[in-house]
Amino acid sequence: MSKFWSPFVRDLVPYVPGEQPKLTKLVKLNTNENPYGPSPRAIEAMRAEVNDNLRLYPDPNSDLLKQAVARYYGVESNRVFLGNGSDEVLAHAYNAFFKHDKPLLFPDISYSFYPVYCGLYGVEFEAVPLDAQFQIRVEDYNRPNGGIIFPNPNAPTGCLLALEAVEQILKANPDSVVIVDEAYIDFGGETAIGLVDQYPNLLVTQTLSKSRSLAGLRVGLAVGHPDLIEALERVKNSFNSYPLDRMAIVGAAAAFDDREYFEQTCKQVIASREVLVGQLEGKGFEVLPSAANFIFARHPKHDAARLAAKVREQGVIVRHFKQERIAQFLRITIGTPEQNQALVDALGAL
Amino acid sequence: MSKFWSPFVRDLVPYVPGEQPKLTKLVKLNTNENPYGPSPRAIEAMRAEVNDNLRLYPDPNSDLLKQAVARYYGVESNRVFLGNGSDEVLAHAYNAFFKHDKPLLFPDISYSFYPVYCGLYGVEFEAVPLDAQFQIRVEDYNRPNGGIIFPNPNAPTGCLLALEAVEQILKANPDSVVIVDEAYIDFGGETAIGLVDQYPNLLVTQTLSKSRSLAGLRVGLAVGHPDLIEALERVKNSFNSYPLDRMAIVGAAAAFDDREYFEQTCKQVIASREVLVGQLEGKGFEVLPSAANFIFARHPKHDAARLAAKVREQGVIVRHFKQERIAQFLRITIGTPEQNQALVDALGAL
Repeated sequence: MSKFWSPFVRDLVPYVPGEQPKLTKLVKLNTNENPYGPSPRAIEAMRAEVNDNLRLYPDPNSDLLKQAVARYYGVESNRVFLGNGSDEVLAHAYNAFFKHDKPLLFPDISYSFYPVYCGLYGVEFEAVPLDAQFQIRVEDYNRPNGGIIFPNPNAPTGCLLALEAVEQILKANPDSVVIVDEAYIDFGGETAIGLVDQYPNLLVTQTLSKSRSLAGLRVGLAVGHPDLIEALERVKNSFNSYPLDRMAIVGAAAAFDDREYFEQTCKQVIASREVLVGQLEGKGFEVLPSAANFIFARHPKHDAARLAAKVREQGVIVRHFKQERIAQFLRITIGTPEQNQALVDALGAL
Repeated sequence: MSKFWSPFVRDLVPYVPGEQPKLTKLVKLNTNENPYGPSPRAIEAMRAEVNDNLRLYPDPNSDLLKQAVARYYGVESNRVFLGNGSDEVLAHAYNAFFKHDKPLLFPDISYSFYPVYCGLYGVEFEAVPLDAQFQIRVEDYNRPNGGIIFPNPNAPTGCLLALEAVEQILKANPDSVVIVDEAYIDFGGETAIGLVDQYPNLLVTQTLSKSRSLAGLRVGLAVGHPDLIEALERVKNSFNSYPLDRMAIVGAAAAFDDREYFEQTCKQVIASREVLVGQLEGKGFEVLPSAANFIFARHPKHDAARLAAKVREQGVIVRHFKQERIAQFLRITIGTPEQNQALVDALGAL
């Protein structure tokens, strides 16, 4: 380690994102992007914003976008926090809420950025095992903790926790912030945002990178009680006053305003998912029940790493994790019907 | 304080950025934005990037932009770090380099975000007084420290420290990271980037918000020894894999490639500055020597806060800081000749 580094930097184990290949010919089913483009209204709004006013700072509070989110969810805009992707929102939330003596809890099979943030902020954690069917067991979260976070639906499993079960966790942990990370909620779940007025310990995070097809724009959000939002704003305003650029503010707002395009493209992804699940099951795969824009599947007779390599040779990328419990699974993003068929073809007879 | 907050959040004193008024009629000389728009080549590149590919994540390493910066400065691209504005770059640098037992040193009159980062990361600091002429005294930095940071030219004074003086500080502190924050260097100073190969303790930060007129896009950078860049990448990749969106990567790269437009607009700002300094001195102001796109001026017979209020009534905004040593100064951004004249007119006879 360089003598110049702050000591904790030596032990950081950064997050490794899925590959972003520079070749465009690949069928990219590895990072859960939306196969359809963003709302045409969002595109139009961003184009109009590319002008000489870029010489000026953006609104540090991104009020236009806060209002669009508030309108969409029927909440007050002082319940909305925004960030440069939901990864930044989560980072600030760890710093704002999870630096306590007791450990943070999250599922053992979950978003692999969660333990990374713990390293960055010095947060102790306990990974709580999913059950044998890869489901969250609510009662496992009835133990001393300094906070709880889980994706819903979970990643990379795709499995949804019912809203009543989310509520049980909230009720059992009134002294802890519970973050429900809803990156994939729009593909088959019901958001917990409707519960924020009832549970002051609930923070719901979302991203525009999946259902709103703006991964390239970097916008995420959180909704919660104003006391939680205030802590996030304090941290954000001690870090970077202007995390969202001018195009991000107007583009994301327009995407929230275009409910019709959003609902239509989500429906298409869900329909394609059901077709693909059928095709993979027909080839002998076991597929976990998914409420996301990806599926998590294993084949009892074929090694997952080999299958990933096999389809890659034919120009299709899927994601494979080496973590012990899930090393025999593939995480497959739902593409267009044509892309999904390319995957099925690349798998061939099994 | 809410029981949910991490304890340090209670004591955070966030940075307060200059006002971003929503009225567009005001002559805005308060946040050191460039009066000229961004490079037309940058505008063109960003427009072309607003398309369906926004559904895809950006390159997490922003290689295209790293290469453009490296090319511009004639350094290797493994010496370049990028962030969502130089504020984010500075935040990560505090975390990566300044968490030591000894205090961080910076001038008492300086960028007011510096102590805010200390609050965020729990870094002890000592504010080192500028001399009576508001200049950095190099020998004041020969004392035990866990790091040094200063803007060059300094903000809000505009005063430049010669490169030989920067080098003296680097030589006197071989065990500390010295950050030279060059937000305003292109308006009359010489960058220290040429020294990074010689001094492994030097990190130079810059922004595209001032001389490259892209405040609305949020891009900043650091150049330094690969060991320093590695620490920054570790922290960044433990925080947010994709801090720069697709438009930011191509727009900033095009701005660096358009050297001609950049040099021309910098020259215009410098020429306007010299005219404005003459006009203000003609009205009895004392103006500190500026190498920035702003000036720092006081009038021996008129209260600064009152002057700021007076010009505001006539639609011109300048920045006034309440901090003790500088409470009688105004910080005035250099606008177009017409905007500067509007300020001169608004001041009237004094």
